[in-house]
Amino acid sequence: MKYTLIGLAVAAIFSQHVLADEGQWQPHQLPQLQKQLTEKGIEISGEQLADLNQYPMNAIVSLGYCSASFVSPKGLVVTNHHCAYGMIQNNSTKDNNLIEKGFLAKSLDKELPAGPQERLYITESVTDVTAQVSGNLAAELTGAARFDAIEANRKALIKECETDENYRCSVVSFHHGMEYFLIKQLMIQDVRLVYAPPESVGNYGGDIDNFEYPRHTGDYSFIRAYVGKDGKPAPYSEDNVPYEPKSFLKINADGIKKGDGILLAGYPGRTSRYRLANEIQFAADWQYPAMVKTYTQIINTIDALSAENPDIKVKYASRVKSYNNRMKKLQGLLDGFKVTDIHAIKQAQEDALLAWIAANPEHQHFKTAIDGLRVQLEKEHAFTRQNYYFAFARSSDLLTTAMRLYRLSVENQKPDSERKIGYQERDLKMFAARLTRMDKSFHPTMDVTMWAEQLAEYLAQPEQTRVAALDNALELEANQSKEALITKLSPMYGKTSLTTNEGRLAWMEKTPEEFQSSDDPFIKVAVALFDTSMQLEKQEKDLEGAMSVVRPAYMNAIIAYNKSQGKPVYPDANSTLRITYGSVDGYEAKDGVYKTPFTSVRGLIAKKGPFPFNAPEDIVSAYQEGKTAGYFYNTLERPAAQSFACKIFGCEVAKPTQFNSVPVNFLSSADTTGGNSGSAVMNGKGELVGLNFDSTYESITKDWYFNPEITRAIHVDIRYVLWLMEHVHGAQNLLSEMDIVHDAK
Amino acid sequence: MKYTLIGLAVAAIFSQHVLADEGQWQPHQLPQLQKQLTEKGIEISGEQLADLNQYPMNAIVSLGYCSASFVSPKGLVVTNHHCAYGMIQNNSTKDNNLIEKGFLAKSLDKELPAGPQERLYITESVTDVTAQVSGNLAAELTGAARFDAIEANRKALIKECETDENYRCSVVSFHHGMEYFLIKQLMIQDVRLVYAPPESVGNYGGDIDNFEYPRHTGDYSFIRAYVGKDGKPAPYSEDNVPYEPKSFLKINADGIKKGDGILLAGYPGRTSRYRLANEIQFAADWQYPAMVKTYTQIINTIDALSAENPDIKVKYASRVKSYNNRMKKLQGLLDGFKVTDIHAIKQAQEDALLAWIAANPEHQHFKTAIDGLRVQLEKEHAFTRQNYYFAFARSSDLLTTAMRLYRLSVENQKPDSERKIGYQERDLKMFAARLTRMDKSFHPTMDVTMWAEQLAEYLAQPEQTRVAALDNALELEANQSKEALITKLSPMYGKTSLTTNEGRLAWMEKTPEEFQSSDDPFIKVAVALFDTSMQLEKQEKDLEGAMSVVRPAYMNAIIAYNKSQGKPVYPDANSTLRITYGSVDGYEAKDGVYKTPFTSVRGLIAKKGPFPFNAPEDIVSAYQEGKTAGYFYNTLERPAAQSFACKIFGCEVAKPTQFNSVPVNFLSSADTTGGNSGSAVMNGKGELVGLNFDSTYESITKDWYFNPEITRAIHVDIRYVLWLMEHVHGAQNLLSEMDIVHDAK
Repeated sequence: MKYTLIGLAVAAIFSQHVLADEGQWQPHQLPQLQKQLTEKGIEISGEQLADLNQYPMNAIVSLGYCSASFVSPKGLVVTNHHCAYGMIQNNSTKDNNLIEKGFLAKSLDKELPAGPQERLYITESVTDVTAQVSGNLAAELTGAARFDAIEANRKALIKECETDENYRCSVVSFHHGMEYFLIKQLMIQDVRLVYAPPESVGNYGGDIDNFEYPRHTGDYSFIRAYVGKDGKPAPYSEDNVPYEPKSFLKINADGIKKGDGILLAGYPGRTSRYRLANEIQFAADWQYPAMVKTYTQIINTIDALSAENPDIKVKYASRVKSYNNRMKKLQGLLDGFKVTDIHAIKQAQEDALLAWIAANPEHQHFKTAIDGLRVQLEKEHAFTRQNYYFAFARSSDLLTTAMRLYRLSVENQKPDSERKIGYQERDLKMFAARLTRMDKSFHPTMDVTMWAEQLAEYLAQPEQTRVAALDNALELEANQSKEALITKLSPMYGKTSLTTNEGRLAWMEKTPEEFQSSDDPFIKVAVALFDTSMQLEKQEKDLEGAMSVVRPAYMNAIIAYNKSQGKPVYPDANSTLRITYGSVDGYEAKDGVYKTPFTSVRGLIAKKGPFPFNAPEDIVSAYQEGKTAGYFYNTLERPAAQSFACKIFGCEVAKPTQFNSVPVNFLSSADTTGGNSGSAVMNGKGELVGLNFDSTYESITKDWYFNPEITRAIHVDIRYVLWLMEHVHGAQNLLSEMDIVHDAK
Repeated sequence: MKYTLIGLAVAAIFSQHVLADEGQWQPHQLPQLQKQLTEKGIEISGEQLADLNQYPMNAIVSLGYCSASFVSPKGLVVTNHHCAYGMIQNNSTKDNNLIEKGFLAKSLDKELPAGPQERLYITESVTDVTAQVSGNLAAELTGAARFDAIEANRKALIKECETDENYRCSVVSFHHGMEYFLIKQLMIQDVRLVYAPPESVGNYGGDIDNFEYPRHTGDYSFIRAYVGKDGKPAPYSEDNVPYEPKSFLKINADGIKKGDGILLAGYPGRTSRYRLANEIQFAADWQYPAMVKTYTQIINTIDALSAENPDIKVKYASRVKSYNNRMKKLQGLLDGFKVTDIHAIKQAQEDALLAWIAANPEHQHFKTAIDGLRVQLEKEHAFTRQNYYFAFARSSDLLTTAMRLYRLSVENQKPDSERKIGYQERDLKMFAARLTRMDKSFHPTMDVTMWAEQLAEYLAQPEQTRVAALDNALELEANQSKEALITKLSPMYGKTSLTTNEGRLAWMEKTPEEFQSSDDPFIKVAVALFDTSMQLEKQEKDLEGAMSVVRPAYMNAIIAYNKSQGKPVYPDANSTLRITYGSVDGYEAKDGVYKTPFTSVRGLIAKKGPFPFNAPEDIVSAYQEGKTAGYFYNTLERPAAQSFACKIFGCEVAKPTQFNSVPVNFLSSADTTGGNSGSAVMNGKGELVGLNFDSTYESITKDWYFNPEITRAIHVDIRYVLWLMEHVHGAQNLLSEMDIVHDAK
């Protein structure tokens, strides 16, 4: 028996071909997977799951950045605590810190407006518009011209769709431009905070436990959708009434057991499952290490200045949290690449595809497509390398704001339909809101320090990556130090109008000429960089336009290859509604260590300690006083050595210890990624049994390659949520509006 | 259902009453445990195990500090690598470092003398001598007088037993003085090193993995017993021949499976299973924290000086290793106390015992015994507190050597039979050897630094713990600093004869008067401290003498209580031959984490990295090239969700992943402690399937309380040893002299 890298890779291909629990499927694909669903014990049919107007899919919603679901006829929605974090923060003050204390509205009138930007999106239709977007383009149309043509077609479809102001439409690329779908979503504008546990429950374990398992996080919150009295979406108003959803998920208070099949529905953000081997090599060898270096600098700088200045600490807290999260993810990717040679696996997959093409003369055009993709990737990687440090060299918040404002003035000169997406009439409200939010996340000392640091990094790079417009505008010299740059740039902050919200908003109305004649130092740099930015944007469009030909061709090859083996192919994640299925299951984290699929309140209490492990006393005492009726979970004892069962197939089953506690979190083999936060985890009947909120450290590489042996998503167990509601937080008002069911005995 | 501390403690008592796999049994107790042995699947009878002259117990031997067993008719012995470490070190030079390279003698003539101090002890008889030791003592005899009377009786019995110079006898207290046994051991004096893997196998994972699991350590070595041509023990001589043991263990090359019962035989050192609750409180609250502080100082000082001076590094390497080991053990104890409230468990056990006594008027004398023990414990704890810092204040190696030498001159004035144990004729060879070994483990700079540090600590304590004799002899002042003390004490090192071996050995012959008139600064201090030392010794004898009345009385109570429930009681470990049984089993290390019972070569290779994880290339390549025939272990697949087995008792068994590799280490629930290193781990037929070498971090508290849920010993799997011998190291010569058997198919 030989164990070589190739051997491993081949094994990996086979396991991928089984498809295991891999797949973030478009709902309309589910009927093709009926056999697999049945094998998992999923009782709802694939046909029913494909229908967005039927239970359970018409209860699944999006917050734009997270997933959620309706759980009552009165528009009650459940999502993650970390998804509702901004809404809780919006309602917190120094003296009434809801993040720390948690919040529970005991009646509708006590529910709090989530914030003017918060939205709830209900996907009502998904229509294939490939023909209208790219079907009518000449084959030879490529580069920026192709990019612009596609964008124009997309904008036209959106405009046509958004005739009703209650809807938000988008045209989304699937399989990297192979298909386009028009997605029409009802947009709820009045979202209110209903119930959030304290941070010591909702974010128990904090950054330390992020991406880790065993986990004991009560990452759930409840919000509610409100509409006008006419039942139509409306901005916040005291007179608004709860929205009545088409359906809402039943809650199964008996939860789920190890080995049970589950369904998970939500809006996964982005994956890269269909990449060539050399794309992973570029990421592993160049891109990720460069990002680790940059992020480390940024985190260290924020930490250092935060230690000196409480105002900076508050303003940059969420940014440093986000960078820490990205760093942990990067570290997990690099660690994962060491454990599993994903490059070799991808190479073996590629070789198998090429062998299939070579064996089938009618498929030779696929070989041309792959060669074409390779050529384009080389250009793309060169572009990324060339511009990486320049991108960060513009990373002052004031400079990027100035650049966006000047761009807006330029776009404003065109008819609305020709403006770049993000600068159209429909975008201006969000544009202004973003300018306003800067007040809460900007400090000049921090801004100049980070900017100078990244400029110094840029100046330390080889001559050919320098950009004359930037060098000239800021009078930069090779190898200037961070300190020298801080001294040089600091005076700009006293002379700009961009540090106030009023100042920023005023620029939204101005003409390009007014920008060009301005003395504002940041506006001047923005104007000076404009032509370069446009050239870069043109290069990007050229690259994307060319990619929009070669990647779909490559995807066609992959789909044809899989079809030849009778296998459907799901598209990479793109923040659209998807369904994945899997099993409740543990995993072998490393030799000798098996992570069991459930954690318990007993384990949560054992982990109690200083922040972020400051488990609240009410939980500890409720548990220790035995106030747990209805929410205990017991696993079976191991078969006795002499037992019948043991004799049938041996006693070599890992000992399932008597669980005997309230479950807190559980693992499943479902295929998830960022954006799936808050996704409903349902049993085979489509009843809610948990909420997705994270995945294990060993799973981080799944964005490139789904390894069914070790990839596990982490969910909050609904029994923990119900237990807290009933026995700890006294949320009987909410329990009574939900449809809570039990397993048949 | 209420979960309170008392609840937990009661649960713990019940689980102790089941006895689980707890118990380091004297072989003669095994017949009482026949039912339990049968339940574990142990086929050898308790009667056979009780007979030290029958297989397998007559194959079990001791190195004095470790356990071992015969595995061939030619005196081949297997033990741990860490037990043979001194023997390997003795045969290593800078240019031929056997620790690093490993060693294999391909023929008898290549086997290396282990060293003049190495012995192999074969226990031939164990005789109850309680009547002769304490049975004839007057009940009112107590304190030092009782201590001395017991010691005199023990010495007389030893003298009577050691008429044959090939035997070593000892009189050992069981149940803390309740019983005494005379142990007669054949003493092999010519021990040779046969085969040791390189340190990168034998100590893979090093200090980092010490007390940890998952583990991948090949902690085994082979040595051989040699005797004179007449078959009798003899010191090393070229003419000696291999010893022919009465029997030797068969080796089962099929190893063991999860759930199988195992036997483990060896010489566990010391446990404290029958302590009162307030003894654990004293240890947890005062003694262990004090030791943590002292050991931390010592380790930091050795590390700091070692970094500057390679000579110090070499000489103190084993000492710092030992302190690190003790620190990890202390930390494990303190961590374990946090996880399991052993104090509460002990208190509940005590309460149950007292309740039983109260309910049985005929047992009221047991209450008196317990009260008496409490009074004595208070005195003992006060004595420990009073003298703790003074003990370390004498911790210069030169000072302790001077004190022992002066004591020897004083003892030499008495008839041999009246001398203190350790200073008799029979002890002098080891006494001299110890003086000689100092050359390899002493450096004046290190000695003075550590001594000054501990003196400074002593001087920082309250006035009442100070000792006038020490203060006067060294002219100490309150709160002198470590630095000042180094300056003050350093000149002593230039003026003493104790820094050379010749100088030290010369003092063994001198009279007390010669000591008293010496100018040697260390001898002067030793003489000055003598009276104080004698007073302390008298106080200790008083305490021990009193304890030798109250602790046996308390043990009688415990034994009577258990007997009333039909349960036998094993004595605390005391470095005598014991048998324990258990099952191959994993454990729940914490909520959500189950440690599986076997580790694999696959896992070992995955862990490969810088020292101490420098897995040798020959192992990696042999494994990757598939040279593993005969030593693979496969576990069963989990039952499929639709399977018959799964339907019978559900599918909620933790998934046993396909093991599919060569096993390296495994876990069992056997009851072990320090001294059990090298112990034979046998299957139900008494065939060798592994070697005990460590226990898990969670198990460290077992010296106080055996928690069957989490206590696991770590063993080397015999299949790993055999695989390395056959496929990696080419030890066919040894394999061919062993009796290797297989399971019936």
